Amino acid sequence: MTPTINADRLWQSIMDIARIGPTPEGGSNRMALTPEDAAARALFLEWCKALGLAFTQDAIGNMFLRRDGTDPAAHAVAFGSHLDTVPTGGRFDGVFGVLAGLEVMRTLHEAGIRTRAPLELVNWTNEEGSRFRPAMMGSRVHAGDMSLEAALAITDDHGVSVAQALRDSGQAGGLTPAPRGWAWWLEAHIEQGPVMEASNSDIGIVTGTMHARYFQLTVTGEPSHVGPTAMDRRRDSLAATAEVILAVERIAHEAEPRGRASATWIENFPNARGNVANITRLHCDVRHEVAARAIEMEAALRTALDAIAGRRQVRIEVDLYATFGPVLFDQTLCNVLRRKAEDRQLSVRDMTAAAGHDSVLVAKLCPSAMLFVPSVDGITHNPKEYSTPEQLARGAQVLLDAIVELAG
Amino acid sequence: MTPTINADRLWQSIMDIARIGPTPEGGSNRMALTPEDAAARALFLEWCKALGLAFTQDAIGNMFLRRDGTDPAAHAVAFGSHLDTVPTGGRFDGVFGVLAGLEVMRTLHEAGIRTRAPLELVNWTNEEGSRFRPAMMGSRVHAGDMSLEAALAITDDHGVSVAQALRDSGQAGGLTPAPRGWAWWLEAHIEQGPVMEASNSDIGIVTGTMHARYFQLTVTGEPSHVGPTAMDRRRDSLAATAEVILAVERIAHEAEPRGRASATWIENFPNARGNVANITRLHCDVRHEVAARAIEMEAALRTALDAIAGRRQVRIEVDLYATFGPVLFDQTLCNVLRRKAEDRQLSVRDMTAAAGHDSVLVAKLCPSAMLFVPSVDGITHNPKEYSTPEQLARGAQVLLDAIVELAG
Repeated sequence: MTPTINADRLWQSIMDIARIGPTPEGGSNRMALTPEDAAARALFLEWCKALGLAFTQDAIGNMFLRRDGTDPAAHAVAFGSHLDTVPTGGRFDGVFGVLAGLEVMRTLHEAGIRTRAPLELVNWTNEEGSRFRPAMMGSRVHAGDMSLEAALAITDDHGVSVAQALRDSGQAGGLTPAPRGWAWWLEAHIEQGPVMEASNSDIGIVTGTMHARYFQLTVTGEPSHVGPTAMDRRRDSLAATAEVILAVERIAHEAEPRGRASATWIENFPNARGNVANITRLHCDVRHEVAARAIEMEAALRTALDAIAGRRQVRIEVDLYATFGPVLFDQTLCNVLRRKAEDRQLSVRDMTAAAGHDSVLVAKLCPSAMLFVPSVDGITHNPKEYSTPEQLARGAQVLLDAIVELAG
Repeated sequence: MTPTINADRLWQSIMDIARIGPTPEGGSNRMALTPEDAAARALFLEWCKALGLAFTQDAIGNMFLRRDGTDPAAHAVAFGSHLDTVPTGGRFDGVFGVLAGLEVMRTLHEAGIRTRAPLELVNWTNEEGSRFRPAMMGSRVHAGDMSLEAALAITDDHGVSVAQALRDSGQAGGLTPAPRGWAWWLEAHIEQGPVMEASNSDIGIVTGTMHARYFQLTVTGEPSHVGPTAMDRRRDSLAATAEVILAVERIAHEAEPRGRASATWIENFPNARGNVANITRLHCDVRHEVAARAIEMEAALRTALDAIAGRRQVRIEVDLYATFGPVLFDQTLCNVLRRKAEDRQLSVRDMTAAAGHDSVLVAKLCPSAMLFVPSVDGITHNPKEYSTPEQLARGAQVLLDAIVELAG
């Protein structure tokens, strides 16, 4: 039997990180490569160094913490997640996966256990994509899904580039982002939905993810004055965008329960109180468990856009700027996780992830899988996001058990 | 007969001002108290000083250019408009009224005519309200409709206060804003609509304005994750706001042709691509020629908001932060303008202004009126905004003729 993880220590570490970038409602705001993100990374690194883990960092800021094994020829077992949050972030999304990995390292350190294969704990850069799109940027560049140059040139809403933010936050590492020859990849994460709680499950085995398609729309009308301009002479980009937002919602309702769609980000010009808007930009996404259905959702969206553009005499440009999934995670690895959970007398259920995760990218490189722990009320990206210390501990324990088996 | 204004000089001055803050499409972007606004004011002041006009400025930045009369006891005849623009501004809105006033001063100067009553030419601060709301800020403070302290504390979308912007642009004058005992007020302006062109009118006599009511709405939902959160569990403030925008548009269509309504400005939080929005702010207004109908439009809006808030489980706060009108302009003054236009064999029609103008505020202090010149295609707040040199010259001539009669 592998040793038991320290549930209190895991909880305390999560609470310590949560205090960095606190929000009034008790959540965390640590957008990627902000001073808050850098501070959380520094605390995490300090903890890792106390365990003697070897630290390296690549040029997109991904952090790798390595514990040597007894067999220098063995490929590493890797695991981790991300410490960055959305602006309305909770305390557990991403953080749990990184600190569960840290708890694995601490438990092995304390028990004096050295595995055959080396272990690598990873904190990926900018998983959330709130400040710099697309999401999962660090793992995307690592997996070769996006070039380093392209990522470095991306700017936030204030014109600051990823390259600049990496320098400013001291996170521009020396390694060229590249696959590291891992044997296996595991990520522990909170579910972020209500399914596990409703079915009384302790551990979710994530067998795959939805297919998601991300769009930026640019709606262009004609500037005019709010007072004298008759309604039928207006080409109002904001009103046209309002119709688009509701069309996205309609498409989502039609795709439920296995699909979702959302419009989340808007930018409006001139955004002046005396002016009918003439340029409005909108971010939206469609996603579905069945890739072909996600593509049908995109087609429905494009049909709606054509109708709106025609009726309102506006132009709507569609930029499909990113996709993720569908991914089927590794069956062998899912089976290891399932067995380890059952060995601990935990209730298990298979899941499909509706959100993007770094594991989606890592799965392109090596056998990968994820485990979920329940989210109370299914609430996430919200200060109310919560999992109990016991729920988190169970997830970390299964992670440790699986890693010990895989690393020998 | 009064002397003839110099149409070429008027046109040239308008073109000279238009070159300050040029936009790629040939319009102007000089939002209030920006460096561009300050540069336009400096050029205007240089022209005024060449005529020996006495310059004073109040603490909200309003500029007063005085030409003495022969009777020191006489109350001044005042006229002017504004040099600031919306971000998608044309070359004529506001600028025409200020430079038509300058052309009046230049023509009298050239002809060596001194009127009995003094003349005051005014450039009001922040008529547009694009950067700092509410609109007509300078004339509002001048008329005592808003306190100087309240105005100075207002901030733009970047947190810069009016007080700071006045200092930065060198426009914080020494006078305490207060009525100046004017006998009459006149404002020349472009129509900004298609009515005069359609009816082949040279001069519009503005007998009054619509009643407008300005709202800021704050829609509050609940943050959640775009992926795992089922549609019926979302409280999406952006989707709710999309419904509000379309409700405003519906109310506008029902109120046409004598009423309008517009939603123009939006701000969304967290405006992050992984998050269902939880706070969205929207600016909208309703306006109607009949004040009671504008109030009914507001009631219709509030009914729509209640329905949306109830159905979507969001909270919608309504801040009615400003109103203008209805104003009935001075009959005597309208008759003077009408007679002067007819004396010049110009075609005249009565108009109701749909937009707010500084004259709405000045009308609280002294008999006031406005004259319009046609806008080609009715286009305004747009780089394509255009009136011909001849149309503008006719307006400036009628302004001069009326001023000479009123000032004796």
